[in-house]
This record gives sequence, structure tokens and C-alpha cells, in this order.
Amino acid sequence: MSKPQINKVVLAYSGGLDTSAIIPWLKENYDCEVVAFAADVGQGDEELEGLEQKALRTGASECHIMDLKEDFVSDYIYPTVMTGAVYEGQYLLGTSMARPIIAKAQVEVARKVGADALCHGCTGKGNDQVRFEGAFAALAPDLKVIAPWREWDMHSREDLLDYLAKRKIETSASATKIYSRDANAWHISHEGGELEDPWCEPSKQVWTLTVDPEDAPERADRVQLSFDQGRLVAVNGDRLSPYQALVELNKLAAAHGVGRLDIVENRLVGMKSRGCYETPGGTVLMAAFKALEHLVLDKTSLKFREQLGLEFSHLVYDGRWFTPLRESILAGAEAFARQITGDVVVKLYKGQATVVQRRSPNSLYSEDFATFGADDVYDQSHAEGFIRLYSLSSRIKALKEKGNN
Amino acid sequence: MSKPQINKVVLAYSGGLDTSAIIPWLKENYDCEVVAFAADVGQGDEELEGLEQKALRTGASECHIMDLKEDFVSDYIYPTVMTGAVYEGQYLLGTSMARPIIAKAQVEVARKVGADALCHGCTGKGNDQVRFEGAFAALAPDLKVIAPWREWDMHSREDLLDYLAKRKIETSASATKIYSRDANAWHISHEGGELEDPWCEPSKQVWTLTVDPEDAPERADRVQLSFDQGRLVAVNGDRLSPYQALVELNKLAAAHGVGRLDIVENRLVGMKSRGCYETPGGTVLMAAFKALEHLVLDKTSLKFREQLGLEFSHLVYDGRWFTPLRESILAGAEAFARQITGDVVVKLYKGQATVVQRRSPNSLYSEDFATFGADDVYDQSHAEGFIRLYSLSSRIKALKEKGNN
Amino acid sequence: MSKPQINKVVLAYSGGLDTSAIIPWLKENYDCEVVAFAADVGQGDEELEGLEQKALRTGASECHIMDLKEDFVSDYIYPTVMTGAVYEGQYLLGTSMARPIIAKAQVEVARKVGADALCHGCTGKGNDQVRFEGAFAALAPDLKVIAPWREWDMHSREDLLDYLAKRKIETSASATKIYSRDANAWHISHEGGELEDPWCEPSKQVWTLTVDPEDAPERADRVQLSFDQGRLVAVNGDRLSPYQALVELNKLAAAHGVGRLDIVENRLVGMKSRGCYETPGGTVLMAAFKALEHLVLDKTSLKFREQLGLEFSHLVYDGRWFTPLRESILAGAEAFARQITGDVVVKLYKGQATVVQRRSPNSLYSEDFATFGADDVYDQSHAEGFIRLYSLSSRIKALKEKGNN
Amino acid sequence: MSKPQINKVVLAYSGGLDTSAIIPWLKENYDCEVVAFAADVGQGDEELEGLEQKALRTGASECHIMDLKEDFVSDYIYPTVMTGAVYEGQYLLGTSMARPIIAKAQVEVARKVGADALCHGCTGKGNDQVRFEGAFAALAPDLKVIAPWREWDMHSREDLLDYLAKRKIETSASATKIYSRDANAWHISHEGGELEDPWCEPSKQVWTLTVDPEDAPERADRVQLSFDQGRLVAVNGDRLSPYQALVELNKLAAAHGVGRLDIVENRLVGMKSRGCYETPGGTVLMAAFKALEHLVLDKTSLKFREQLGLEFSHLVYDGRWFTPLRESILAGAEAFARQITGDVVVKLYKGQATVVQRRSPNSLYSEDFATFGADDVYDQSHAEGFIRLYSLSSRIKALKEKGNN
Repeated sequence: MSKPQINKVVLAYSGGLDTSAIIPWLKENYDCEVVAFAADVGQGDEELEGLEQKALRTGASECHIMDLKEDFVSDYIYPTVMTGAVYEGQYLLGTSMARPIIAKAQVEVARKVGADALCHGCTGKGNDQVRFEGAFAALAPDLKVIAPWREWDMHSREDLLDYLAKRKIETSASATKIYSRDANAWHISHEGGELEDPWCEPSKQVWTLTVDPEDAPERADRVQLSFDQGRLVAVNGDRLSPYQALVELNKLAAAHGVGRLDIVENRLVGMKSRGCYETPGGTVLMAAFKALEHLVLDKTSLKFREQLGLEFSHLVYDGRWFTPLRESILAGAEAFARQITGDVVVKLYKGQATVVQRRSPNSLYSEDFATFGADDVYDQSHAEGFIRLYSLSSRIKALKEKGNN
Repeated sequence: MSKPQINKVVLAYSGGLDTSAIIPWLKENYDCEVVAFAADVGQGDEELEGLEQKALRTGASECHIMDLKEDFVSDYIYPTVMTGAVYEGQYLLGTSMARPIIAKAQVEVARKVGADALCHGCTGKGNDQVRFEGAFAALAPDLKVIAPWREWDMHSREDLLDYLAKRKIETSASATKIYSRDANAWHISHEGGELEDPWCEPSKQVWTLTVDPEDAPERADRVQLSFDQGRLVAVNGDRLSPYQALVELNKLAAAHGVGRLDIVENRLVGMKSRGCYETPGGTVLMAAFKALEHLVLDKTSLKFREQLGLEFSHLVYDGRWFTPLRESILAGAEAFARQITGDVVVKLYKGQATVVQRRSPNSLYSEDFATFGADDVYDQSHAEGFIRLYSLSSRIKALKEKGNN
Repeated sequence: MSKPQINKVVLAYSGGLDTSAIIPWLKENYDCEVVAFAADVGQGDEELEGLEQKALRTGASECHIMDLKEDFVSDYIYPTVMTGAVYEGQYLLGTSMARPIIAKAQVEVARKVGADALCHGCTGKGNDQVRFEGAFAALAPDLKVIAPWREWDMHSREDLLDYLAKRKIETSASATKIYSRDANAWHISHEGGELEDPWCEPSKQVWTLTVDPEDAPERADRVQLSFDQGRLVAVNGDRLSPYQALVELNKLAAAHGVGRLDIVENRLVGMKSRGCYETPGGTVLMAAFKALEHLVLDKTSLKFREQLGLEFSHLVYDGRWFTPLRESILAGAEAFARQITGDVVVKLYKGQATVVQRRSPNSLYSEDFATFGADDVYDQSHAEGFIRLYSLSSRIKALKEKGNN
Repeated sequence: MSKPQINKVVLAYSGGLDTSAIIPWLKENYDCEVVAFAADVGQGDEELEGLEQKALRTGASECHIMDLKEDFVSDYIYPTVMTGAVYEGQYLLGTSMARPIIAKAQVEVARKVGADALCHGCTGKGNDQVRFEGAFAALAPDLKVIAPWREWDMHSREDLLDYLAKRKIETSASATKIYSRDANAWHISHEGGELEDPWCEPSKQVWTLTVDPEDAPERADRVQLSFDQGRLVAVNGDRLSPYQALVELNKLAAAHGVGRLDIVENRLVGMKSRGCYETPGGTVLMAAFKALEHLVLDKTSLKFREQLGLEFSHLVYDGRWFTPLRESILAGAEAFARQITGDVVVKLYKGQATVVQRRSPNSLYSEDFATFGADDVYDQSHAEGFIRLYSLSSRIKALKEKGNN
């Protein structure tokens, strides 16, 4: 396809080396105005500090920074938790959940500034390009999309540094950066370096958010999470906003080395990658949420909820947030989550988060069955009838086979 | 239903208080010969020692003890592991998997001794009665089934002790036994006592197989598991039989407090129960198996395997082992498992089993993609086309909606 | 269990032989007042006419008849259609959907008249007892339940006629009734007689609602159905209430022999049964609804909707209407159904209902793709990239295997 | 990507206008030898007659025609039938199943003749390109792939005719061809023309294989299908090869107008298309197979088989035949299919195929339950216990809620 005409483009800007190079590159290659956009999804102040100046210095005409922290937790993280989604049985979807809210805000900025194009700094081998562009397709099919990594012929940090140096654009980035990381309120991810060999154990320097379990306190802590209709509303009795509750959980869990994960996963684009993740608060939150579910949901409901979670994990990972399928699965999950109210105590110790107490006004567990009157609720003699009918098809099959021989 | 006529009954006998009382009760109430049967599924020598004498002394005419340890691991545990089945996201199905093999062997004894009935000591409120009788229905629909707990009017250990005392049958059982436990090569379960309150943290005395993580060694150990076509064949390089490999894993993992679980679960019979489980080797085995899957199975395969595991977890839990559905799911899982060959290193530390290394000749992960030649395998420019088509329905929907307005 | 004490019981009364005998039997056996209750779910006036007098004559103290026709169609049938549920790939769930609404109304009557028990005339081998009592358990766990067919020792129509004759209670029922039938606005079912042999083709006298396709008009008719958010709102352009729309469809379809079904199905209670069903309007409605879905839902949405339908078919068949699972699945299905607006033309001819035209404002189908501008939406060159990434794991696997050899 | 170097290419050749133009185009554009390959998958002699001469005349150096009819039916169609796969609830996958066997044979020819590339004539907007190239990726990742429709700038039949005329290559193709069709032993598909408007009813000239139901015989026919372990082995008592059995079924069903289908479907590449299909024998075969399943499979098995079919329908449609997922699903389906033995009679009348009789040695249906002795198999009193436990969680929930208020 021929190169599109562009007047103004909104770039998802992080201030890192890649997007710093993208600003001049866009201007040179598309002869357009570049508006930088950064979303605060809880990645930490160090990433956001001085971002506007940096963007303008690098050539952006404007820089918009939006605080999406509470929305991210309320509208993306908690709903996903309600589905129980865990990608490939392990990954808590930290990066995946952040992309749609960033893309959505980016589109909003584009509308506001009258841009005709969107740009992101994702590489051509990863999932994030699909997540961004999937969102763009759904929210702004009329806007053009530029993905420099798929277009330019730079292939390394050295190439980018050279590019900037030639243009006399200052950068604090160094040529050697071992790991590629992505952080937000929910997690941080790490790729690259020795992790590229799945037979290689991650070194200590991989991890940045949590203490090493071996260095964690010798004494366990216990934290109490309180849920109302599937949403975390208090930590250790303190009512907190969704985001603040997560921040608090992160602090408590990280101190005990909770939430580290080291996996090989299937990318949407057909290849495998090895990544390490730290999701301290999220690990505790997910464990607590599921413990309440175990108290509240009956057998068939819980099984179906597991199916919803399996489907949703792929949907989120695969960048299909803005689709009718998301609305359907979430509606199904929320119907269950309305019952998920109660308290859970989680023990934190040396990397482990262990649920040790749970209670709910909607609990179906009954310690003392007699409170219903044994006769009214469960008569052991009922079991015979149950078993006879429950296994009736097996019995008939066996009798038939006997008769056939 | 009127009481059936019975000549000879084979009892699943454990030597515990319940089945000790059942022997005289059967003889008195059915005027029949009682053959005791015990399966060695790895529950430990202390349970099996002196069992025959005890059975005969209590009134059994014969006592058959069958060593099922290797068969249990080969034909029940490893196939279940291949499906990835974890009941309600947590329980590794230790008791559930043991029931069908015990029931099957019990039927074989019944055929050998010419019995016309089968008896078990399961209570009327649990899952095990369904698992035993489901197996009986499939394997011996012609044999009668006696479930004393649903029939007699004894309700407590005191009642049973009185019953035996009146008949001058000695027992070493005491009136006070806090927890109800079930052990085999894969796990031990604990119920009762303070566990009946889900808001109560398990006390130290609950656990019997694993050391408390807080008392576990300060130094981590690493264990290497080698798999061939989905089956564990070596531990730390030593080729071991299926059962011996599991025994070795149990020993290593238990020393680090690995494999404890404390959950509320949905019983098949409609109520919830709270149980604690220790599955030290199994926890390590399952983690290692899944780590290899992540290296070997592509995205759609892994998702389908997760569906198989979800279905199989309920099948096993619900006592449907001897059904066509088991054959179908296992056939599907084995087709994948044929690729699951390789090594995994698991770090054991303070209750945690963490996969830190994995490799496989069938790995789809490629550290150095260039080995295939970048052009031959993945061209970043392909991503644009992929994304365009992948999100095409979102784009069309968005354009249509725009057009509609 | 010992016989419960009962003062007043509400009986689901049809006026047929079974429930006619149940009234005196309840009074004799429980020494209680019997309130008859009948639901008008569209089974036809002949069944309802004179019902009150008959009930009082037979010994009931009161007779309540509730018109549930519109609610049945709005709140049970249309939601089920939205899930696409078809039990075992064939059965449109006519009887299954009616039981929960009848049971719910029966409970309401029981509350109003201050009854302490509920009674139904379902046999002990069928699904309906589970559906009634499952609803009772969820809606009125405090009320006692009487199921005469599981209690008394009558086993045939002759027994019942004798029973009534001895009590000089008149009945118009005859000793010979070949088929057991159940009718409502959605369908009529037929069991018994020669149908008990699945190798026997149903005779002409089985069918009561539809003309034999071989006797249907030589000329096809076409009917247009209009949907708004998943609900049928007009037939051939006439806006009709939910129930009236179904009545109209029934009339049109029955005249062409549409909606006959002859199947063997798995009952919930473990045995198989053979039944014939006539669902003329429902067959047309379901076909039309699905045709709109094909126009509106994208691939992943439609696949998930099929999963919802599979789950929901079992839920409804198995009598689990009043459960959290129903709420979850319906919420998921309704999220999709909000898009299902448009018109469908169905051709009716000699037993067949064939969708021949469909249109929707939410259609994702685009006849003339160029309206979006070919470049903007789909560039054929995109397909290469799509295919490369889509099949990348296959390629890697093949290359790896080649390398391994 | 730059144009690859090619010496010899094997083209999937049909003799139609497209692939006739591709031969000279390949030679001109790649300066390579072109080997034509055609698979006989039962599309009919008229398509195959004179094919070799035509290919050579058009410029091919060789023409290989392989008879795949029996393999197609045995190894692709019958296994797919065993899974019950029906894409989006309607499409019987005729074209989808043929692509992998053709691609596999094409690769075999390429190996034999020492080709370094493969070529197909599929357009860039359809599914078939993905199916071909997905198979190529799995079977011959080392071979280059040429897809002329995505490369050249011809866009219409006129363009192709011009192209051939300029090169003085004769063709019998005409400029006006309304419908695009694809035929094999299982079906024929039709696209294009008035079908591009889903609100337009197909005209009579669309259909080529089946008589119009309105013109079909006034008298119904009945055909008996006999299955052995899931495979059709006899028609009306005549044992036939897999392919011959299908041919016979096609003949019988087509005469009664059976097997027409008119749908809008979701293509894998993200757009919708409207197609008409004729699958006369396949429609009868699928109906008969499922009728036997209803007799033989228990409830949970049948539900799982429906899930397998849903997954498999997408797998086949999406061109994932040569993947581990196919092996897994098929292994699961075959485990069930081993029981599917017996006879089914299907009535053919005016476009309808109605199962009217079915029997199987493995049937779980029991006409006369008494043959097992009522007491041994089903005691109506068992139902109470079944229902109590089956609805126990509903009862507990209701009691809890009452207690909460």
C-alpha cells in the first residue's frame, strides 16, 4: 500500500527510546504534526515525570497526559478479575488489560485535537500491536494507523540512538538495556536478556517490584480483603478506592515476594515467548476473589464461570476488548459477581499468598447443617436414590453389554 | 425397598473404626459371609500392617490385600495429569482418582470369591459413595450394594465403639478423632475439627505429610523432572517406575512444605465442604507437566487442553471414571501428551514449587528465530495484514454503525 | 421418611385422569384441604374449559386458573430462543420451559391461600418431577412436596379409573389412551404407544397439531418475521404481542406441516425416551432468529453464542431455571440479542421452513464492499500476512520436526 | 517482500479460467516450469475430462491427476461426520474438508517432481487461500507459495480472457459466469450473482445438483443406512465402499431435493459471505449418524460430543487440519464413534430428510424396562432422593436467603 497522507498524528508516547525516535521520524516521513499522548495507568511517577517537556523537546507539538488509574482498575481490571481470567493457566493479563484503555484514550485525544492518524511504538512481532490496532479498528476505523517498527529499517537500540544523535536530540537512554519491561498498576513484565533461553533460570536482576522470596521477612503477614459484589472495597478494614486498594495490596504483597511468575506463553501472532511477570497485589486479589467464589457459587455455576474465564483470558490477551463478545462474557460474569460479597484473609509468606479464612453473607457452606433441620435439607437415605439415577446410564450400558454377550 | 438376600459380600476394608464395625453388622443384619478387601494405593504401611489379622479377628472370613500402587499411578494418576484436570481450579483429585481403581479391584475380588454383594464404608453425605457405586454400576450391575452408613442408625464414633464393645470386638480406635483423613500415593486429605469453619485458619496439627513452610529449610532445592510422552520417567536423572518417581517427588517436596491446599469445594451431592489437602509430589508434577505443555503446545491446542482438563476434573470428581466420556477425553488428552517430552527444573522453597527451567525436543519456542532465516518464518510486515484481517469484523461493525447514524 | 403433616396443599391440576385421582387421594391420605391450580400456558381452550367445576366436583376446595400465556412467551420462550438452545441438537424444549413458570405460579397460589404443601402429578421416571421440585426447592424450600406417583401403588389408567369409580367420582377419561401428550403455546409432545419402539415409524395418529407434510398445500407460503433486539415483534408486518405473534406463526406453519420432530433423547434421570414433538411456530421462529444472528454476529461471537445455547439447553431441560447459572447465561445471550434486529422471510413448504431472505440494520454483511472503499477495509495483500501469522505455529512445528530428524 | 526465485512450481489446477491464466502468468513472471496438478475428489467427470491436454496446451510441462475419492471420504469426510461438526450450525463443510487433502497431494507431487514452489488459484478474500497455505505451512514449510490473485492486477473474468487472448491461448470459458461454484463428492457450493444480496431469494438456476423440492416426487422414499463404528458401510443393505456409499446416497437424496442450504456465514478472514450449498447425501448421512448417537450415547457423552463438533467445525473451516488439535479432537470423537453401530431409516420427501427408524446393538434405550426387572434398574422412589440432592444447592441458597432477610 502506498504511504497515506497525514496531517496530524497522535502517538502513544512513553518517553522511552523507541517513542522518542518515533516523533522526529513521523515528522520527517509523513510531514505531519505529532501530538504526544501518555496514559497514567499506574506505571509509576518516574516514568511520567518530565514527560511533557521531553516530548516537546523531541519535537511533539503538544503532549497530553491522562490519568486513567481509577478507570483502569474499575473498568478493566476488576471486570476481568470477575471472569477469573488467567491466560494459559498462569498469566494475569497485566499488559493485555492496559492496552485497550490506553488506545481508547488515545482515540479521544485524536478526536479532540482533530488528528487523522494514530501511531504506536509496538514491535511487529508482539501482541501489543494487535491490541492497539484492534481497538483502533473498533473505535476509530476512519483514522489511519502508523506502526513505525513495521515500517522503518532500524532494528536495534544502537540504530535508534544513532538516529537521534544525528538529529541532535538528547536522550537519557543507554545503548545497553537488557530487559524489555512494561509496568502499570497491576503488574510489571520482563522479557529479553537471559530470559530468552527457557532453560535459563531468571537472575535476581530481572525482578524489580517484589523482594526475592528468599529475602522476604521470616514472619508471615495476613491481609484481609473485603469484597462487595465482586469488587474489592477494603483492605484490612480500610475502605479504599479501587486503585488505592490495589496500590495497598501491591505494597503488602511485594514485601513478601508474592506474585512472581516465569512462563513461556503463546503469543497471538503464532510464536512463543518467555516472560517474567510481577503481579503482587493482583495475585492476592485473584486468590481472594476465587476463595469467595468457592464459598458462594454452586457447582454448575462455578464450572461455567471457569469456562467464561477461559474464554475471557483469550479475548483480553488477543486484543478483542471492544467487541460484542466482551460484552457478553462480562455480562455473564457480572451476574455471578453480584453474589461475591464477603471477607477473605490471605497469608503472605516467602512468595506465597495462601487463603486462610473466608466468609460471606451469600455463602452456601453450612457448618452446622442442623440449623436447617437435618430432615428438611438432607436425609442420607436420599443418597441412594441419587446414586441410582445418577449412574443409571452406566448400569443400563453394563446390563446391555452383558446381554449382548 | 426390602432388604436384599445376600450370601457373601466383599467389603472395602480399611481397618478403621467404621469398617471394623461394618463386618459384624453385615453378618448380623444380612446373615452373610464377609470378605474383607483392602487396596494398597500407597496410603502407607502403618495402615496396612496387621490388617489381615484384624479383619479375621473382627469376623471376616477372608482378607484380600491387593497392591495397586503402580497401576494407580500409571493408569489413573498420570492419565489425569495429562488432561491437566484440577477440580474447581484447585483440588488435585487425590481421593477421587483412587476410588475407581479400588472399586474395580473390589469387583474382581467379588468375582473370584463368588460374592453377590459389595459393601463400602462411605458416609451418606459425601462423594465417595457415588464414586464407589458409580463404578459398581458400570462394572458389576448384577451385584448388590450395601452402604451401612445410609442404613444403620449409628451416627457417631461413640455409637460404633459401643457397638463393638457390646460384641467384645477389640479395637484400637479412640472415641475422639478430630479429623477425617484419606491417604494414598498422591495425597492426603483432612476434614473436620476446626476446619468446619471456613473462617478458621487450619491449625498446625491438621497437616501430616508436609513440613510447615515456616519450618522448611532456608535453602531452596531444585529437582529435575524428565517426561516421556506425558509421563514422568526420571527424577533428578534417575529413571524410576511411575510409583517410585512419585514417592521420590513426594519426599523432596514434602520437606519444603510444598503442596498444601485449604479450600471450600462443591461436593457432587449438592453441599459444600471445607477440606485441606497435601499433595507434595503431585503439585510439583502438575507444575512441571504444564510447563512442558507451554513449551510444546500451540495456542489453540493449549486452550482446548484446558477445556479437556475442566471437563475431566468434574468427571473424575463426580465418579464417572468407567464411562465412555472418560475414554473420549483421555483419548483427546493423550493425543497432545504424546508431544510432552523433555525436562523441567522446579525450585522448592518454603511451600512453593516454581518452575525455573524447561526444555523439550518438541518445543515450539525458538530463542533465535534467525535460525530459520527471518524471511522464511516471520516478516514483521506480515503483521499488518494479520491485524487488518484479524480485526476486520470490528472495523466493519464500526463503519456500519457510523453509517447508521 | 415419615409422612409429613399437611393442612392445605396446592395441586398442579390439569383436569386429566391423573390429577383427578390425586385430589381425593390427597384428602384421604393426608387429611388435608386441596386447592387446584391450573396454568394457562396456551395449551388450548378445550383443556381449560369447565376445569374449575371439574376440580370442585372432584373434591378441591378452590380452583385457581392463571393466564400465563404472555409471560410464558416473553419471559421463558423468547429468552431461551435468544440463547439458541436446542437440546441434544434437536428438541426445542417446549415442555421444559413451561414447568418453571407453572411451578412459580403454583408457589404464588400457595402463598396466597396459605398452603403448606405443593403437589404435582408427574411420574417418577420422568424429567418433569425434577423440574417442578427443582423450582419448588429454589422458590419455596419451606413447603412440603407430595409426588403421588412415587408414593401410591397405582400403576395404570385402569387402577386410577377403579379408584375414582369406587369413590363415585365421575370422569370422562377412558381406559385406553395410547399416547401421553403435553401441550402449550410452543409445542405439543407425544410419547407412548408404538413410539416406544424407536425402530417403529410414527403412525399418522400421533400428530395432532400439524398437517402431514404429504397432505400439505402444493404451493409454498412465505412469512416475514420482524425482530427487535432479539424479540419477535411482527408477523407479516402486523405488530403483535409476544403470545399473539407465536399463535400466528403456529397457524401458518402448522398448515404446511412444519415443526414435526421424532427423536430419542436422554432424560435427566438417566434413561432414554423416544418422543415426537410438534413445534410449528417455534421451528420457524428459531430458524429466523438464527438467520439474523448469521447476519449480525461476528465469528467469535457466534461461536460463543453456540456454547451458551448448548449450556442453556441442558439447564432448561434439567430443570435448573431458578439458579444463578440461568441468570448468567441469559445475561450473556441478551448482550448479543440486543443487536438482533431486522426481518427474515421464511418459506413454508411440505414440512420445511427455509429462510430465503434476511436483512438487518446491524448486519455485518456488505454486498458491495466498495462502499467502504476497497483500500480502507480490505486489501487482498493483507491476506498474505494474515496467513503467515495465522499458520506460524504450524510452520515452526514443521521446521522444528525437520530439524529434529 | 522481493519476488522469490523459483525453478519449478506445482499448481493446483482445475482447468477453469483462473488456473488457465495462471500457467502462462507463472511462466512469464517467475520464469519457471509449471506442473499442473488436479485432484479427483468426486467433482464429476466433466471437470476432469481432457484436463491433461488442456493443461499441456496452456503451457504446463506435466499434468498429474490423482484419484483421491476414496481417501477423501474415508479420511476426511467420515472422521468429520464422527465429530458432528456443522459450521455455525448449518454448513456441512464440503469445501473446507476438501482443501487439506488436495493440498497434501499437491505437496506429494511437488516432492516427486522436485518442485520448489506451490501455487493455487484462490482469491485473496476467501477462506481457501488460508486452507491451502495452512496445509503447505504444516507439510512443506520449505516450499515457496505463490498466490497469483494476491499478486497480479487482473480483477475480472474479462481481464483473464484478455490475458489469454493476447497470448493466443484458447479457452472455452465465457466472459459471463454468474456463479462461482465448487464441487466434490460431498457437496457443491454456489456464490455470486443475485446471492450477493441476502435479502434476495435464490433463483432456480442457482441449484445444480438437487431437484427443486417443489418438483420432487409426490411419493416419499425411504433409505436405510447401516453404520459400523461410526462409518457408513451399507445403503439399503448393499455394502459399498465409503465413496460409493456416498455416491448412492447423493443420488437418492438429490432426487428428492434434499440437502439445499442458503446461508450467510462468517469467513475466517473477517467478512461475511452468502452462499448456497447442496449436500444431498451428506445431509442424510449426518442426520442418520446423529440419530444413532441419540440411541447410543449417554447424556454427558452426547453433550461433550456436541462440544467436540463445535470446536471441530471451526478447525476444519479455518484450515487447521494438519495440527495437533485435529488429532486430539478426532481421537476424542473416535472414542465415541466406536459405539455407533446400527441401522437408520431416513424418509426422503420434498426436500426433507426425516429419520423415522433407528436401532443399534449398543442402544441404551430400553423399550421394555421390565426386562431388567424394575427393581434392579429403576425404582420410582429413587427419584425423590435424586431430586433432593440434585436441587440441594438451590434449597440451601433459598434457605440462606430467607435466613438473611
